[in-house]
Amino acid sequence: VVRAVSRRNLTAAKKILNKAFGSIELTENPLEVVRHPDIDIVVELIGGVETPKNLVLEAMAHGKHVVTANKALLAEHGNLLFATAQAQGLMLAFEAAIAGGIPIIKAVREGLSANHIHLIAGIVNGTTNFIMSEMRNKSIDFATALKQAQELGFAEADPSFDLDGTDATHKISLLSAMAFGIPIQFSKAYKEGISNISPIDIKYIETLGYRIKLLAITKRMDTGIELRVHPCLIPSECLLANVEGPMNAVLVQGDIVGSTMYYGQGAGGNPTASSVIADLIDVTRLHTVDPEHHVPHLAFQPKALNDIKVLPIEEVQTSYYLRLRVTNQIGVLATTAAILAEHQISIESVLQFEEDKTPIPHNTGEVDLVILTNYAQESMMNAAITKLQQLPSVCHKIVRIRKEELQD
Amino acid sequence: VVRAVSRRNLTAAKKILNKAFGSIELTENPLEVVRHPDIDIVVELIGGVETPKNLVLEAMAHGKHVVTANKALLAEHGNLLFATAQAQGLMLAFEAAIAGGIPIIKAVREGLSANHIHLIAGIVNGTTNFIMSEMRNKSIDFATALKQAQELGFAEADPSFDLDGTDATHKISLLSAMAFGIPIQFSKAYKEGISNISPIDIKYIETLGYRIKLLAITKRMDTGIELRVHPCLIPSECLLANVEGPMNAVLVQGDIVGSTMYYGQGAGGNPTASSVIADLIDVTRLHTVDPEHHVPHLAFQPKALNDIKVLPIEEVQTSYYLRLRVTNQIGVLATTAAILAEHQISIESVLQFEEDKTPIPHNTGEVDLVILTNYAQESMMNAAITKLQQLPSVCHKIVRIRKEELQD
Repeated sequence: VVRAVSRRNLTAAKKILNKAFGSIELTENPLEVVRHPDIDIVVELIGGVETPKNLVLEAMAHGKHVVTANKALLAEHGNLLFATAQAQGLMLAFEAAIAGGIPIIKAVREGLSANHIHLIAGIVNGTTNFIMSEMRNKSIDFATALKQAQELGFAEADPSFDLDGTDATHKISLLSAMAFGIPIQFSKAYKEGISNISPIDIKYIETLGYRIKLLAITKRMDTGIELRVHPCLIPSECLLANVEGPMNAVLVQGDIVGSTMYYGQGAGGNPTASSVIADLIDVTRLHTVDPEHHVPHLAFQPKALNDIKVLPIEEVQTSYYLRLRVTNQIGVLATTAAILAEHQISIESVLQFEEDKTPIPHNTGEVDLVILTNYAQESMMNAAITKLQQLPSVCHKIVRIRKEELQD
Repeated sequence: VVRAVSRRNLTAAKKILNKAFGSIELTENPLEVVRHPDIDIVVELIGGVETPKNLVLEAMAHGKHVVTANKALLAEHGNLLFATAQAQGLMLAFEAAIAGGIPIIKAVREGLSANHIHLIAGIVNGTTNFIMSEMRNKSIDFATALKQAQELGFAEADPSFDLDGTDATHKISLLSAMAFGIPIQFSKAYKEGISNISPIDIKYIETLGYRIKLLAITKRMDTGIELRVHPCLIPSECLLANVEGPMNAVLVQGDIVGSTMYYGQGAGGNPTASSVIADLIDVTRLHTVDPEHHVPHLAFQPKALNDIKVLPIEEVQTSYYLRLRVTNQIGVLATTAAILAEHQISIESVLQFEEDKTPIPHNTGEVDLVILTNYAQESMMNAAITKLQQLPSVCHKIVRIRKEELQD
């Protein structure tokens, strides 16, 4: 039973709300809802972080279970909010906060509860996936694809949190905590957006048998937890590589189940509603039972792993795509290869077209030298790139995109 | 706590069981387990149907929750078993019975509980998917691919229930009941296996932009429920079309969430164990609470749809791939097209190679006429094929494979 609704500008919405719910309590003051004596469950679907944080805390202080779709809120204050819910024996449900309509939280927390998860890699931001799909399919540049995304409603008027990877980082920080039993550590995640991806790199990458996606990755290594969001090459035969347009997909690898993948719409009113209502049904089904029967907010964990650190990006190992725009002269490849070797970076493959056969024309006398490397440590790659960039034959900023040999 | 284990030949397994569980009760008589006074949950992992049926009923008669991976049991006796469990307030959990390690039951019953599902289409048999992947990738015939599958452990010594679609039909009958709130109706499902698929059809199908998969499909139509398993053309850009080897994937479309897909290993000891343990954790978490807090066995259903019938295959509409091996003479295409038109079947596309350009050589003077049709009713197609088959220019049995314009 929907008892009360609060929203900012009530006048405009009154008709719709009355039509949908009949005669219910309407208020512009959300505190009236979260403190309402007859309400058991509060659904929080407002933006921002501080206002919803206070409302959720106030709702829990009044003994109410909470359903939220707010990933920013949980990424930044989840440790406090989940601890508060736990202490009060309340449920704080958040299926809609990650990958929209895909029941990924249910899969990770319950469906794969037998597993030690070792990797989660996902396309969890529809805006950037739409833009990159359009760039590839229509051979257009970033700015044009962004404009189209905005016209079609796949990008907001201010899309910066999508484009710079913040939104995906919110989500992977939450998934990482559930996968590995660590606190939510949004501030320690590495993030890099898609605005530097150019059509020529997309073309070269395709020629090499890969596709490029904005991936959110978290991985359990012997030395710690990897937690990062960045454009990433993945083999084109991977299912993840074929997730197109605004769709989301999350690959979860466990020690018993192997690879599993979950696919669907990651944003939009309806997919979000699908997850919010599923949460409401879950909470309603269990809100009168003892809290010990609830699913733990951050999944069943065999033991506390609080002391396992999130690895800084410099300590992460990936393989790499490098593109050097160089003057077309003798010895450039030899020098480049020597510098990489100095830094213990081995070359997996090289792509260099004859000057007149390059897929996208550029200045005369310049060619693109494209290199795929084996696994190397980020700090070594940084050092190598600094040195390569100083070579007089390198005419532009070196492009570096990470690469994962994912298998699904 | 694992309290007791029963298996047929104990002597061989004693060492392993004792090593795994310490000193537990071992018996060759399963009745001792299902009647054991100190046991709360029975896990049934034996083959066949009648023996496990009696054991599960006996376990429930003794007030025990049951976890099973036995799809044949549930497809044939699920209506009785779920009703018995319901009446006793017991849980009968079966995540491992469908698509192995993929938490598909959890997704359908809980994750998508806000939705009216309108379609489920899945690759739910790893043996046949492996065989068909090998046939395509290595251009080998069915018998050779089957032999390889058996050598690699992807097909059993007697694989007939996999090959003829029985196993997939078990699974889709269960999914259909959960999706649409109807009784389990395994006996009313249409099933067709893969043994008639030939390399030449795989080649033509690929040329036309499709792949062929053994699909298990259930669909809500105005006139009733479609429930069928058969080889099926799907557009090659679909994610489902790219599910290779022994992997499973299930596409679920709901009215609110749109398309979602779930992917993973569908068979084998470990993926099965992953789902069995997830069920055990679910049951353990809730076995002391009031039964009203359990998830309904066949999902939350808005109202009883018991009177909605499963459509006989003759009333189903799909589109079709047809291959006619014909003598290379004037007028064959015209006659064929006329017969199809007579039966209200419209042609979508035609493929006919010059005799010397056919991808797989055949008898001189014969050519393959390949046709994709629009949606047509199966009964009309049957009539058209009967008439076409009688044409003197048609030299072999006409190949007919159904086709779905799936979108994920």
